[in-house]
Amino acid sequence: MKISSWAQFLVRTAIALAIPCTSFSQTASSSAAIVNNLMPQPSSLTAAPGRFLLTPQFSAGTTRFNSPRLDAAIHEAMRQLRQKTGLALAEQSASAGAGSQLKIAVQGAGEELQFVEEDESYTLSVSSTGVHLEAATAVGAIRGLQTLVQLVQSSGSEYELPAVSIRDSPRFPWRGLMIDFGRHFEPVDVLKCTLDGMAAVKLNVFHWHLTEDQGFRIESKLFPKLTIMGSDGLFYTQEDVAEIVRYARARCIRVVPEFEMPGHSTAWLIAYPELASDRAPDSIRREFGVSDFALDPAREETYQFIQRFLGERAGLFPDAYVHIGGDETVSPEWKTSPRIQAFMREHQLKDSEALQAYFNRRVLKILTGLHKHMVGWDEILTPALPRDVVIQSWQGEAPLVKGAEQGYQGVLSAGYYLDAMKSAGEYYLVDPLPSSAPLTPEQRKLVLGGEICMFSEHVYARTIDSRLWPRTAAIAERFWSPEQVTDVDDMYRRLDVVSVRLEALGLRHLSQEDAGLRELAGTEHIDELRTFASALEPVGFHERYDQQKTSRLTVLDRFVDAVRPDPPSRYGIERLTHDFLKRPKTDTADRDALRRWFEVMAASVPAVERQMKQPPLLA
Amino acid sequence: MKISSWAQFLVRTAIALAIPCTSFSQTASSSAAIVNNLMPQPSSLTAAPGRFLLTPQFSAGTTRFNSPRLDAAIHEAMRQLRQKTGLALAEQSASAGAGSQLKIAVQGAGEELQFVEEDESYTLSVSSTGVHLEAATAVGAIRGLQTLVQLVQSSGSEYELPAVSIRDSPRFPWRGLMIDFGRHFEPVDVLKCTLDGMAAVKLNVFHWHLTEDQGFRIESKLFPKLTIMGSDGLFYTQEDVAEIVRYARARCIRVVPEFEMPGHSTAWLIAYPELASDRAPDSIRREFGVSDFALDPAREETYQFIQRFLGERAGLFPDAYVHIGGDETVSPEWKTSPRIQAFMREHQLKDSEALQAYFNRRVLKILTGLHKHMVGWDEILTPALPRDVVIQSWQGEAPLVKGAEQGYQGVLSAGYYLDAMKSAGEYYLVDPLPSSAPLTPEQRKLVLGGEICMFSEHVYARTIDSRLWPRTAAIAERFWSPEQVTDVDDMYRRLDVVSVRLEALGLRHLSQEDAGLRELAGTEHIDELRTFASALEPVGFHERYDQQKTSRLTVLDRFVDAVRPDPPSRYGIERLTHDFLKRPKTDTADRDALRRWFEVMAASVPAVERQMKQPPLLA
Repeated sequence: MKISSWAQFLVRTAIALAIPCTSFSQTASSSAAIVNNLMPQPSSLTAAPGRFLLTPQFSAGTTRFNSPRLDAAIHEAMRQLRQKTGLALAEQSASAGAGSQLKIAVQGAGEELQFVEEDESYTLSVSSTGVHLEAATAVGAIRGLQTLVQLVQSSGSEYELPAVSIRDSPRFPWRGLMIDFGRHFEPVDVLKCTLDGMAAVKLNVFHWHLTEDQGFRIESKLFPKLTIMGSDGLFYTQEDVAEIVRYARARCIRVVPEFEMPGHSTAWLIAYPELASDRAPDSIRREFGVSDFALDPAREETYQFIQRFLGERAGLFPDAYVHIGGDETVSPEWKTSPRIQAFMREHQLKDSEALQAYFNRRVLKILTGLHKHMVGWDEILTPALPRDVVIQSWQGEAPLVKGAEQGYQGVLSAGYYLDAMKSAGEYYLVDPLPSSAPLTPEQRKLVLGGEICMFSEHVYARTIDSRLWPRTAAIAERFWSPEQVTDVDDMYRRLDVVSVRLEALGLRHLSQEDAGLRELAGTEHIDELRTFASALEPVGFHERYDQQKTSRLTVLDRFVDAVRPDPPSRYGIERLTHDFLKRPKTDTADRDALRRWFEVMAASVPAVERQMKQPPLLA
Repeated sequence: MKISSWAQFLVRTAIALAIPCTSFSQTASSSAAIVNNLMPQPSSLTAAPGRFLLTPQFSAGTTRFNSPRLDAAIHEAMRQLRQKTGLALAEQSASAGAGSQLKIAVQGAGEELQFVEEDESYTLSVSSTGVHLEAATAVGAIRGLQTLVQLVQSSGSEYELPAVSIRDSPRFPWRGLMIDFGRHFEPVDVLKCTLDGMAAVKLNVFHWHLTEDQGFRIESKLFPKLTIMGSDGLFYTQEDVAEIVRYARARCIRVVPEFEMPGHSTAWLIAYPELASDRAPDSIRREFGVSDFALDPAREETYQFIQRFLGERAGLFPDAYVHIGGDETVSPEWKTSPRIQAFMREHQLKDSEALQAYFNRRVLKILTGLHKHMVGWDEILTPALPRDVVIQSWQGEAPLVKGAEQGYQGVLSAGYYLDAMKSAGEYYLVDPLPSSAPLTPEQRKLVLGGEICMFSEHVYARTIDSRLWPRTAAIAERFWSPEQVTDVDDMYRRLDVVSVRLEALGLRHLSQEDAGLRELAGTEHIDELRTFASALEPVGFHERYDQQKTSRLTVLDRFVDAVRPDPPSRYGIERLTHDFLKRPKTDTADRDALRRWFEVMAASVPAVERQMKQPPLLA
């Protein structure tokens, strides 16, 4: 680029004011050593000397199997390479394969419907003469393409792929992200960006939490009142669902829908009060926290309704799993209603827990009839539960271990609640299946993986990205990479790189903070406010809820909404402090760096204070 | 918000390091004086003492006419107020009117189809007891709602509307923004955001430049080959068009489509070579600049094609105007083909200009038959042209004046080319109809207004916002506000406010720069790079084109794409320098401020230089 006339004016003025201007010099260092920025880290990587130089002639082609899905993924990888390198790579079809520099050899499509045991492995080898990507399935090849894009690095003047041999497959087959769309709805575009991010870090399950006390977020043609009365008009149409399922499948991501029952069901009961355990709500719940309405497990009509409802869902969601929630069920009527009590006696159900277990067995039977497996939160783990159920542990690791001991499959979510606003480093070190877990090898296989959870009391379209990313990428590595990959420093180093790459895919987790600060301050001059904000982070769900008494109607446009969880300064200062305390007292470098940081921070305060005097929201 | 435990840690560490931390104090100053941040400025504003305090009980209601369009606009205004103030304003229907604090009295819908002479006037009065918005049409009321939202200001602890009496109507009835989607296509979402921004600053014509040598961007069911062969798959479906027209109408914006003919027509001729002036192109044009292909004006089939094509368009675009381009037509065959030469002799057309004038008259006749008026770039202004045509002057102000003298209506675009990358201040001072123009009062009425032009050689989805905004807001004020509103300092002061507000609507003109820099640097640590970039701006179209030899296939991901036109530092430094030169030599404040700025800039250079060593794109 040429510096414009305005910049020339600046330079002239600088000369007039006798301020030295450094000129730029560029040295073309042709390094071929690998800079390992991969996230997640592959199971095995061997670096060799040499590199493959990227030129505008770089092309990709399949040598064996191809399919529209694989072809589209290759196109997308080429687009990302084009964007990243500025090279005008040709847009040719991938099927014209054998002469290409990137040869993609895939044995077959994999399963028609992606399932838990899908083979996601691949090998990727780069030499100075070419790049080979091999996989048993299109899914494996698509995972490998993400690695390839991440592998691109630059020497002084060129883009290159370092010579490597990568052999990779995931540690866990179930690597999920759950998002709650009940408490706050998100537009389809936000979901698509989220799926793009998930694919980039090799997550493979999108757990779509679609019903809540605060809103019923999916259209039913059989029961239209569910959204007419229970959604405030904020819901996904069946076309939206088809589009998201298609979009996810293109990225080798399974979509597991969740319909909360029998609790967290206020929104169902607004529309169909006859399904309630005697007492139905007057209106959609605006408050957060647990409600005390529940579907009635003691009425045959409830199961007829669920049968028809889930039957309609089965046509929309091809995945083999359906999540029925099952957590936090509170219904005083289960203890007081003579009718329900009589039902319990008749069925020898001694307490509410047994009644819910009965309900779960009935729903499981419906799902089995629909050829679906059941997933539920850990409350569903009761003695009478059949084994063909996946337990999602949210209350701790104990239910997962307990479940595995009893023969249940499970995924871990305790420790991965993003709305707790912990740091990437904290989440990163939570292992779904630590070596120390007291399980046999057979039982260990029952632990399928983990799911990150984003409950949405305090997020909406303009803040969700910064609550999800980049922390989700760190946890995704935990689910994919070998257990020994636990170097937090190295994780943070790579997270900075992957975070920017995720933004290039369309996510806005980095830019949302400044945009929020500008909006609060009412000006784009936010240098000091940005400095100040960089040291703050949002509080966890409970703390904010307790203090602000937030509800579904709270406008989420405060300072706490603008700032990001786990800001980069936090880890930086932690490192400095750590090093400072470790080093001999005579070495003052860290102390000086810390002092400088605090001085910059303190220097920002007067301007921030001035700015905060004006807009009440900022104050 | 509560500062989180990490921030508490920081404060403790600061204390340990003996760095003073200023505490925040807040004084509730209850100022009621108006802070005039309105853009565009209204024709008349009288401020009074007092204010209307905004509370969660604030509500809006219509007292006379209402319609779904007006109702939706009121809802949107309430949403913006909610977002801006954090007040949980109720979401009631606007028709429940008379008891509301904001009373909206509208006489009627206005015309079924918005047209040039639409009444857009309104009055807005705020007193301590209530707010009254009155307008003859829904269009006027919707303009007034934008003013109302802009009027909200904050005292120390509250949000308020200052007591004012505003009487407002536009200076010009045609206030447009043209965007070229031929050279680069933009997704529908980008268009919608653009329309949101246009509505916020009271622009009322979206000029949709849909065909170019580089691509045919609108589906034709009659002639599907136009997009199959001429669009690289990047085009608007007829559903997209309907959606955009609907979205624009909701915001009282007319949509004027442009189909370039007979020149700039490479994309037509790829699909239908039989329409060419003897010689047809082999492929879509990738280069920029003017091509030398043209539709054949000497063949009856050409007009039959245009008749059918425009007939199909007429059903899609309700607006009374259709733009036929008409600029930069070059066809060597018009001078060499015996057949065309014979046609010209037969019709007594002495040269190429006369031939194009003949073509224009034929197209005008077709449009008249479709009940449409014709708009064209100033080349269409030739002696034989009928008067019922609007001339869009792009080559200077002379054609506009010349046209008005001859009785043609016109809009000015010369001086408003955003791709020239001039400053907001420069565009701002270009007047479509300066007092000095040598025209009679009757002729002056023929100047309908102006149109901002964004040609898209060097923009795409991730940079277009920063090329459009906020400069478009400054020009929008020129089109709406009285001629005497020319204070550039005050314009820049208000532009900072409106710019942030536009971002809150969903535009990304401010955040795109940092995102681009992060992507180039491959890290989110871009403090110095940001400082450095803040003094640079992209070069104008010609300069870049000449230097980089850009084409449709050039990847637009360089430093020059990341930085913004007219960065805030430019005007700031200009002011400082100006003041510095004006003041007595003993007053060194400005000189010191300038020096500090250059020192900060110079201090950023070493880090920027280090960062630039790595990614080739950044270097």
